[in-house]
Amino acid sequence: MAKEKKLVEAITSMDVDFAQWYTDVVKKAELIDYTSVKGCMVIKPAGYAIWELIQKQLDERFKATGVENVYLPMFIPESLLQKEKDHVEGFAPEVAWVTHGGLNPLQERLCVRPTSETLFCDFYKNEIQSYRDLPKVYNQWCSVVRWEKETRPFLRSREFLWQEGHTAHATAEEAEERTVQMLNVYADFCEEVLAMPVIRGRKTDKEKFAGAEATYTIEALMHDGKALQSGTSHNFGDGFAKAFGIQYTDKDNTLKYVHQTSWGMTTRLIGAIIMVHGDDSGLKLPPKAAPVQVMIIPIRQQQEGVLEKADELKKCLTDGGFRVKVDDSDKSPGWKFSEQEMRGIPLRVEIGPKDIEAEKCVIVRRDTREKIECNLGDLAQKVGELLQQIQKDMYETAKAHVQAHTYEAHDYEEFKKTVEEKPGFIKAMWCGDQSCEDKIKEETSATSRCMPFEGNEPINNKCVCCGRPADHLVLWGKAY
Amino acid sequence: MAKEKKLVEAITSMDVDFAQWYTDVVKKAELIDYTSVKGCMVIKPAGYAIWELIQKQLDERFKATGVENVYLPMFIPESLLQKEKDHVEGFAPEVAWVTHGGLNPLQERLCVRPTSETLFCDFYKNEIQSYRDLPKVYNQWCSVVRWEKETRPFLRSREFLWQEGHTAHATAEEAEERTVQMLNVYADFCEEVLAMPVIRGRKTDKEKFAGAEATYTIEALMHDGKALQSGTSHNFGDGFAKAFGIQYTDKDNTLKYVHQTSWGMTTRLIGAIIMVHGDDSGLKLPPKAAPVQVMIIPIRQQQEGVLEKADELKKCLTDGGFRVKVDDSDKSPGWKFSEQEMRGIPLRVEIGPKDIEAEKCVIVRRDTREKIECNLGDLAQKVGELLQQIQKDMYETAKAHVQAHTYEAHDYEEFKKTVEEKPGFIKAMWCGDQSCEDKIKEETSATSRCMPFEGNEPINNKCVCCGRPADHLVLWGKAY
Repeated sequence: MAKEKKLVEAITSMDVDFAQWYTDVVKKAELIDYTSVKGCMVIKPAGYAIWELIQKQLDERFKATGVENVYLPMFIPESLLQKEKDHVEGFAPEVAWVTHGGLNPLQERLCVRPTSETLFCDFYKNEIQSYRDLPKVYNQWCSVVRWEKETRPFLRSREFLWQEGHTAHATAEEAEERTVQMLNVYADFCEEVLAMPVIRGRKTDKEKFAGAEATYTIEALMHDGKALQSGTSHNFGDGFAKAFGIQYTDKDNTLKYVHQTSWGMTTRLIGAIIMVHGDDSGLKLPPKAAPVQVMIIPIRQQQEGVLEKADELKKCLTDGGFRVKVDDSDKSPGWKFSEQEMRGIPLRVEIGPKDIEAEKCVIVRRDTREKIECNLGDLAQKVGELLQQIQKDMYETAKAHVQAHTYEAHDYEEFKKTVEEKPGFIKAMWCGDQSCEDKIKEETSATSRCMPFEGNEPINNKCVCCGRPADHLVLWGKAY
Repeated sequence: MAKEKKLVEAITSMDVDFAQWYTDVVKKAELIDYTSVKGCMVIKPAGYAIWELIQKQLDERFKATGVENVYLPMFIPESLLQKEKDHVEGFAPEVAWVTHGGLNPLQERLCVRPTSETLFCDFYKNEIQSYRDLPKVYNQWCSVVRWEKETRPFLRSREFLWQEGHTAHATAEEAEERTVQMLNVYADFCEEVLAMPVIRGRKTDKEKFAGAEATYTIEALMHDGKALQSGTSHNFGDGFAKAFGIQYTDKDNTLKYVHQTSWGMTTRLIGAIIMVHGDDSGLKLPPKAAPVQVMIIPIRQQQEGVLEKADELKKCLTDGGFRVKVDDSDKSPGWKFSEQEMRGIPLRVEIGPKDIEAEKCVIVRRDTREKIECNLGDLAQKVGELLQQIQKDMYETAKAHVQAHTYEAHDYEEFKKTVEEKPGFIKAMWCGDQSCEDKIKEETSATSRCMPFEGNEPINNKCVCCGRPADHLVLWGKAY
């Protein structure tokens, strides 16, 4: 009972303190734990199982486009990191350095990979000789390290899990095509699996990846109106190829540089799921990313036949292809309901002696809390329909939230007022000059999220900051 | 043509130089590549796909026993590593140390995990309060680092991929049960999936894991007669629990220490597959661990209808649940055959104009090179039967090799002669004194592999080394 009380008390309302609400949810839904290693976290079973579902479904989508998985070392010799000038400037200040192996100092420092462009280049340099060796479309699932000063579970930690794709192509066109293709794989995955609408667009030069010619991004809007960069895809042109000397002999027998891309998604997505869908009762998982889709909660489980029936329903649903558990712990049903809600399990099935007698059960949706009476014989079919419906409805609800929190600003006064009063995306024109981006960031904390691919019709013809002629529509917002 | 020649020339016969043969196979079968990072390798698509199959099938077996996956940080603070005395002595000499984060020196050095007992203990210390929190049966898939001086692809590298299970239990009995259970999961996996017979047994105190009360092992015999430790499972008793203060309140309201286990398998298994099954034509993959099970090789593929028919067969086999590719490259059929053999693909299907006319094709087994004529209409069924047969036959062949290379030694002269002349396992009695183990290792290079659980009937009653009374039968051998 003491424990029950503790759980219910501990959840802060998201309207009172969104940051605290977030922290409460990650802890109370048992997704992570803090560790003795500053800035690093333990991903607990409930959190890791979400990552496994993300991995599996994303990996299938990758492989359908011809991606092959590989594994490269976690260490990068300092000299290798330094080969591409912009890249090293971007990453060197935030890497962890290994200086000793065993009892001896190393001859050359190694950094723990913050990203693996340089290693892939070093690898491709030997792998690629002829046009026959192209394209290379490789990906790895691994962890990377960035020595962040301030950290938050899933959103920013010193070590995080991700996938990084690295490709090499014969032509600039093919590289550009792959860059966009992977951005679309990411966007479709977010929308179809995570029920999370995203804006696809291009980063400004200020915001692009260190060493890239172009960075494309998907930006999602969290419940508090802040943006979260959820996946990026970079076109490097032949910049890295020139720095590393990655050349191939083409059909015409001339030596040419390859064109490269990279693209990544991280455990940050779990943070996005929490902040897009969650509510004051906790996590809300979209069915396709829910390790447990249905929690069966027996009522009066000590009465004869109740647990047996619960197990029977579990078997029936498991056979139907759903991920199901029975909560047969000795807690009260009310406590079990709260726990299932906190953990974001999309459906619960309540089954007690009276239900069994009537050959019925009660299904409760986590997203709408709607209660549905269901004949036991129809359970598997009904659960299937409901999970599909929840997946769809969660996406629509999130989509409506983005639409309701996307504003336009025609001049700087309107822009500042909007940033202050209406958290969300702001569409505004930009002259293309970085000094305007810098000024906006300094004065309002909003940053350019992207130049969207769609919904990018000019809203006027003046830069929202300096008033000079502008033809770039930019999506702005405060961001995680 | 130049490339074809190069491949055929480059393979050393295993009887001439086994070590070179091994290196040739890992390179020519495109499993790995060397890197600029000394002692670390790239696992290429053909190698990583084997690891993915191992992971998937092992993970399913874990989960069937109640294992849950988690992820813990890759860094261990020095003070944490030092908490268990034996453990730190075993690992500190071979860890990599991070001393700087970004531009600043760290207050405390962090080692890159060589194994994660200490982190799991630190985690469990907070997670476990009551008997209700037990057991914890967690596992993680990750990479670890051990600063080895001499490295060999898959067998010994500074970074390798593995899984590490770490469990905590209320009682000593339960911990012992889990230790044995996981060893059996490993052994069954090796025998059923990798077609690799293993000897299950217990390590002597000299060979056990740093900090363990007991280490169980599975030992496999490679084609050259050397042993390979292929998986280990450790029972820690309450040693770590006492060092870290991991206590729970039992039902009787008293504080008790937990009992812990850990168990791991690594990418070393890929080395084992190569050295157990391979031959002078290259790799030989057991069907259950083969990323491609059937390679369809069109003959006279430029003739009308040949490639179409090859694709049709591929579709038919893929629909049948097999992993299939068509080699439609512009190389000669002979070259494609060699390549399929080098890569260890269990079956190839040859299909040319004459076959199509006769509605037949030729299937060739990689393991026996047997050629089987098959009606096209029966292909999927025949392929299914053959893959099953190959899986079984490869196991039997390997089993016979172990039996033919397991010897007995009744005294030290016989022991030394056997080590010198007959590479393999040697059964011999041991008094239990470490000085005898030390002497044997120093004088013969053979080490105690394990005290086997089965086939351990005493062969006489004297220690093979000192002649004193002995009742431990030990399996000895030179090892990787």
